[in-house]
This record gives sequence, structure tokens and C-alpha cells, in this order.
Amino acid sequence: MKNEFKEYFKNLLGEENAHFDSIHQRAYSYDATKKHYLPDGVLFPRNEEDISEILKYCNDRQIIVVPRGSGSGFTGGALAVNGGLILSFEKHMNQILEIDLENLVAVVQPGVINIALQKEVAKHKLFYPPDPASMEYSSLGGNVSENAGGMRAAKYGITKDYVMALRAVLANGDIIRAGKRTIKDVAGYNLAGILIASEGSLAVLSELTLKLIPMPKLKKTAFATFANVKEAMNAVYKSLAGGVNPVSMEFLDHLSIKAVEEKFHKGLNVEAGAILICDVDGNVKESVEEDLKCLREHFLEAGAMEFKIAQNESEAADIWFARRNCSQSIAIYGTLKLNEDITVPRSKLPELLEGIEQISQKYGFKIPCFGHTGDGNVHTNVMVKDKDDKEQVKKGYEAVEEIFKLAVGLGGTLSGEHGIGISKAPFMNLAFSEAELDLMRNIKKAFDPNNILNPFKMGL
Amino acid sequence: MKNEFKEYFKNLLGEENAHFDSIHQRAYSYDATKKHYLPDGVLFPRNEEDISEILKYCNDRQIIVVPRGSGSGFTGGALAVNGGLILSFEKHMNQILEIDLENLVAVVQPGVINIALQKEVAKHKLFYPPDPASMEYSSLGGNVSENAGGMRAAKYGITKDYVMALRAVLANGDIIRAGKRTIKDVAGYNLAGILIASEGSLAVLSELTLKLIPMPKLKKTAFATFANVKEAMNAVYKSLAGGVNPVSMEFLDHLSIKAVEEKFHKGLNVEAGAILICDVDGNVKESVEEDLKCLREHFLEAGAMEFKIAQNESEAADIWFARRNCSQSIAIYGTLKLNEDITVPRSKLPELLEGIEQISQKYGFKIPCFGHTGDGNVHTNVMVKDKDDKEQVKKGYEAVEEIFKLAVGLGGTLSGEHGIGISKAPFMNLAFSEAELDLMRNIKKAFDPNNILNPFKMGL
Repeated sequence: MKNEFKEYFKNLLGEENAHFDSIHQRAYSYDATKKHYLPDGVLFPRNEEDISEILKYCNDRQIIVVPRGSGSGFTGGALAVNGGLILSFEKHMNQILEIDLENLVAVVQPGVINIALQKEVAKHKLFYPPDPASMEYSSLGGNVSENAGGMRAAKYGITKDYVMALRAVLANGDIIRAGKRTIKDVAGYNLAGILIASEGSLAVLSELTLKLIPMPKLKKTAFATFANVKEAMNAVYKSLAGGVNPVSMEFLDHLSIKAVEEKFHKGLNVEAGAILICDVDGNVKESVEEDLKCLREHFLEAGAMEFKIAQNESEAADIWFARRNCSQSIAIYGTLKLNEDITVPRSKLPELLEGIEQISQKYGFKIPCFGHTGDGNVHTNVMVKDKDDKEQVKKGYEAVEEIFKLAVGLGGTLSGEHGIGISKAPFMNLAFSEAELDLMRNIKKAFDPNNILNPFKMGL
Repeated sequence: MKNEFKEYFKNLLGEENAHFDSIHQRAYSYDATKKHYLPDGVLFPRNEEDISEILKYCNDRQIIVVPRGSGSGFTGGALAVNGGLILSFEKHMNQILEIDLENLVAVVQPGVINIALQKEVAKHKLFYPPDPASMEYSSLGGNVSENAGGMRAAKYGITKDYVMALRAVLANGDIIRAGKRTIKDVAGYNLAGILIASEGSLAVLSELTLKLIPMPKLKKTAFATFANVKEAMNAVYKSLAGGVNPVSMEFLDHLSIKAVEEKFHKGLNVEAGAILICDVDGNVKESVEEDLKCLREHFLEAGAMEFKIAQNESEAADIWFARRNCSQSIAIYGTLKLNEDITVPRSKLPELLEGIEQISQKYGFKIPCFGHTGDGNVHTNVMVKDKDDKEQVKKGYEAVEEIFKLAVGLGGTLSGEHGIGISKAPFMNLAFSEAELDLMRNIKKAFDPNNILNPFKMGL
């Protein structure tokens, strides 16, 4: 990067907020993909005006800008794959600006960590439901940019369902507002709608107004085992259509159950084909009990071998232990885990899992699956035994591609939670037609004609 | 319109689906704005392929196309303000294609009437919550295009919260799919998000996949009167923040109460400053009762003069009578009603209503207000005594403009439910900056470079 540019940013932001040394470059070169790309520099804007000045300058000079949350993404959204400047909100723009108790919204800067908001609003008996697995360290700006999901999506939806309004800076430096602190707002195009999930490629988010809801007073956890996935899925549909609205409805397949049991000896039934774990919540005992009763009925009718309800928090934690430790337990099947987050319509889950079983047999990999049955989001894990065996790794990626094709063929999506970034970019043409991709490219151009904002992502 | 064009459409669709006579022109020249614009012709596409062929042909020849639902819109979205062809889905594309009980979605064509879907899904104990006042005759395609709201928005949200996926035809005839039959889908830009509320100006919707939820088993209605609006609003915040999640929380101001009582003699307290009407629902008696108990506590604490709960459906209907007959009752104040649907953050409602009172005094019009306190959406009605007095009418519109300014100044929006169309187009610059409007124009261009789709709307 030209010295002239560096000087400009140091003058604009102060020496302490504009870094071009190799330590900063390295520190901001990675994310959860474990891939590394060195940026030319790292900037810490202090406020929206800084962002605006930075973008104006970069736009005029065609300098690439990559907005970055916490770098916890699984698909490379925050990587400067072709150099340019990382824009980080960790240092300054990380404040909760307002908890508005009358309108039940929070106004935050993009760098606020998800869990920090959850904890803050809990003090007021309020609830911010989106809970990506990364919630302890991922930022809300990143959550909105990737439209993060989580365990509670079955009942409470995902990040997009909680974005009331955004402030953002366009590539040319213009500051825009999108949405309002109101449930209803139908004036003009739904700009907030298109900014959500745009992976930092349309504008830089500078302020988020997020919807809060009252914290439910009671929660209970239920656990059931089934002989096979089909019965478990039947239990899911029956109970959902029967009026149960579970907070989460998580499942483990046979391989995942075996792995957790082998590693932790929790007394799980290793003969079981599937486990379902459900949380239900509410404000009165009777409503929660009615949900549990319904679950029990539908689950037993669908063929559950075992159904139990946690009697206290420690029993609930015990039940959740299996789900929470799936991801690490399945390491017994291989040293390289190629994990994806495909999602299909719930009714297609049995077909998806059968198809994955066939792919597993064809390629000779174990592919344990677990995830969010309530919303059809499955974490599939192609386990490559030896990560140093190039031939095996290549085959592993072939298996992944077949899984994508399978999911898309079942009316599903390449990604339920993680986004496209660079990791899934090669597969976009499996999921989208040329007309759809062209339209996305035209939208990108409408926002960012010089293509300076997080370019070379999403296969566009 | 050239004969050559007419012949093309007659050949494509059959004589019975392509009309250029004055009867059809007239029949499709109006909407609920009561304004009239004659289109050049009216086409009834039989399917998505027809739409695609029509658009391809029109795009190449720069012929304007205006998609039209039921023509029940309040802002002129379905009017051919500059000629062109009306595309109507009333005749063919009006079928419910699928009720998917496993994934809890309905797939419908754009011409399906809202209430038809509600009734159909109710047979399966399912619920499609969006309930615009026009639900008996407005189409779902129109609902999505305008992002229609309704009474149940406080708990259940609005149309956009129920759109899972769309199929649409672009101006160039390309068919695109947006979204999936899944709660989670974060691959590519949120195309469905930007199509919702775009008033038919970005693409022609050809199929809608809508989310359904289980029908709540129980519902109760509560009623309260307050000495003034401020106390009523306090009751609203307190109960919402206290964990009550009412289906609807409607209010009538003093003028509305007086008008209903004068017209219908229902025994309403004409001294009251505000009435609140709330529905709560749930699946177990105890949860509904808990909500009612909470409401009662918070309402009395906030100063309610009277609080009652309907003991049966007929009492509930009686309570709702006042709200449902506001709109016609206020005719006692004038022969011309200039009604708007501004929305402000709930906490700003008292300020909004005070401001409206001042505007009322300044211009000498009665301005009764009623609407959806739960979501801040207020129907304001500037009542012009004599609709034939041009001077008065002009003043009426000036008062409306002041109301818009007031709402926007309070962080609100020009429209909570009705959209912009032509009616509110002149006020877009009150609500949006030049940068925001430019961005919208660029988005329009990205979808529709020749500007053939419902142009000259939304002030763009």
C-alpha cells in the first residue's frame, strides 16, 4: 500500500487506529476457516463519520475494504482474500448505546459481542433470542452480516427476525438509515432486508437497532431416543403440527451418539438411531406442562423408545451435554472434519440423512450428523481419517460437493447459518441459476459500483 | 397501443385473456384511492411462463407493466398512472397450490385472497396471522408487494414475517427463486427481503411460499378506559415490558369514542380520553388467564378507570364493535376524510397525539385517531367538513403534510401499512435523504433497467 494512503489513514484516525505492520496484518489475516490472507492494513474507526471518510477515500482510489466482526466466521467472510484494508469494530465501535424499555429495542454498535447484549438485556428481564454457537465471541455486526442462526431458531427465528433498523455507510461514504424502531414500516424499499446476510459486500453497518422480547419465565428440557431417524423426524412433525412450539428441537444421529458415549461414558443408548432434545418455555407452569405432555404423546406415538423430562437444571444440563459435545466427540472418526451447515425443509430430513448414508458408503468416510431438526438445519461432518493424505482429503471434498447437490436437490440451501464467503463460493452455481447470480451481481453494483466492499466473495 | 402489440398478446394468451376495450380499461382503472387512470390493456396471465413471455416482449419494446392484485390498495400501487398494461392474477393465478403440513408452509399463487388462505389452513388447525383490514378481498400477492400489516401485528408481526420464499419474473423475463421452505437460508443475497414491499416495481411475483403456525386454541378479549392517552400508553408499555404478549392492542382516542357513541349508542364513556382493546391468546387456560391478570394489574396501575374481560364471544364482539366501526363513525366530523397510516415508535405515541391535537387546533379540523398501539401504527383522519370547499381541502392536505413531518420527526414512518404508491410519493423526501433515494433508484435500475415495472411510483 502506498505511503501516501497510509499517511492519510494515520492522520484521519490517529496512529493508534491505523496499522500497517506485519503483526497487525497477521493478527487480522485469519478466521475460523483457518485460512490466512494478509491484509494491507487494519483500521479501527472510532465512529460512523470515520467509516464514511475511510470509504469515500477508498472508493475514489479503488482500495478494497473488508469489514470484520470477531473473525469467528466459518466461510471466510472477514478475510482480505485480495488484500486491502480490514475495518475492525473491536476497539471502539463496541458499545451498547441504548436499551429502550418502552419500545423493546436495543441500539448497539456493530462490535458488540452477542452474549454481552444477551446479558445486559437479561438484567431487565428481556431476551435477545439469536444464539449462534459463537455467541460468546461473535459480534452482532457479524451476526447481522451473516444472518446468524442458532439453537433457538425453531421458536424464535434467526438474526433477521430481530433487526428493526440499521445505519450503514455506502461505498461512496454516504450514510443511510434503513428501517425504523417500529414493527411496521413500509415506506420505500426494504433496505435493511437486503443488507442482512450480505456479508459486508453492500455497505458497512455502523449501528444496529435490534428487537427484544420479554424473557420467558420458565423452561423445561425433554429427551427422547428413537430406533431410527425416520421415527424421530415423524415425532418432530407431529408435535410441531400438533401445536407444540419448542424453543429448540435438536438431534444427534447414531454416529454422533456413539462418539459422545465412547468419549464421555454418559450412559447413552448406543443402539439408538437418533436422540431428540427439546426445550420448551413459557410464562406459566401449565402451558409448559401442556407442551411437554403433547411432546410425550407425539413422541411415544412416533415410536420413541425412551422419553424423559429433566427435573432440574442439572438434569437439563446433563441432557444437553450430549448435544453440546457432539462436535468434539466425533473427532474419533478422523483427524480432518469437513463440516457444513446445509438446511433442507424439515420433511426432507429423512431423505437427506439416507442420502448422506449412501455418500458415506460410496466414499468410505464416516459422516456423523447432528443439528437443528426444528428448522431442518443439519451439521454434516465428513470425517477424513488422515488429514495429511492428500488423496483422502480430495475425496473428502468430493463427498462434500455431493452433499451440497443432495441438499439443493431436496429444496434445501448450501448454508443455513454460516454464509457463503469463499468456502462455498464454488458451489453457488449448484444453488442458483445464472439469472439469479446476475441479479445479485447487479445489486452488488447498485450499492458498490467500484467493487471495493469485500469483493470476491459469495461467488459473485 | 399499437395493433401489432395487441395481436401479440391475444395470440399469446388467447382472446379471452388479453383485453383492450374500454370496459376492461375502466374496470381496471381504479383502486381504493378513488383515483382513475386508464391502462392501455388488461392481461390475465395463465401461469408463470405467460408472465415471462409478456415481460420479455414488453421489456424489448419499453411497454409499461403494472401488476395488480385486487385493487384494494390505498396508495395507488395498482394504478397505471402513465398507461401500459395491467397484469391481473384474478382470473387464473388464484390457486392455493399446497398446504404442506410437515413443513408448515402454504404455497399459493399471487391472486389468492388473504381470507381464502386463512380459512383453508384453519381446516388443519393452522394459522396465517397477517390480517389487513382488507383481508376479505385483498390478494396475497398484493399483501406481499405492499407488506401488509393488520391487527395481529403486535404479537404475530406482518406479512414479511411470513414470507419464506418467492418465485418472481424479472423485467427481462427471467424467472428467479428467492428463499426456501426453510427457516434458515443464508446463501446469497436476501432477494425475497427486497421484493417484499417493493410495490410491484422490481419484479412480478408468480408464487408465494408462506409460513403457517399452529392455530392457538384459546383467545380472550379485554377492554379498558383511561382518562387520557398518556395513561393508556403507559399501560401499554408496562404490560408489554412486563411479559404480556397481546395478539392486538388497539386504541380509540376521545374523538373516535365520541363518534362511535353518537352513532351507535353503545354506552361508551364519552368522557374517556382513550379506550384500549386487547386480545390475548394461548393454548392453555392458565397462560391466557395469567396474561389477563398481568394486563389488569398494569392497566389499573397506569390509571385505568374501567377494566373488563369479555366472558364469551358475544361480549368480545361487542367490545370490538367500537374499534371496527371507528372508521365509518367519524364521518360525523366531515364529508372528506384524509386518512393516513403513520407509525411511530410506541413510546412516541403520546407526543404524536399531542402534536396532532396542535395541528387540529391550528387548522380547525377534527383529527380523530385510532389504531394499533401495540405496534405504534396510528390511523389519523383529517376530517374536512365540506369536501366541495377547495380552500378547505387544500388546507386539509397541508395538515396531512404536517402530520407526516411530525411522525418522521419522532422517528416514525410515512406508512405502516399502506405503502407509498403515488399518494405519499410527494412526501418521500421528508422521510429519506437524497442518498437513500438514490440508492433505491439504483436498486430499481438493477432489477429493471428499462423502468417498465410499475414506474412513477414511490417517488423514485
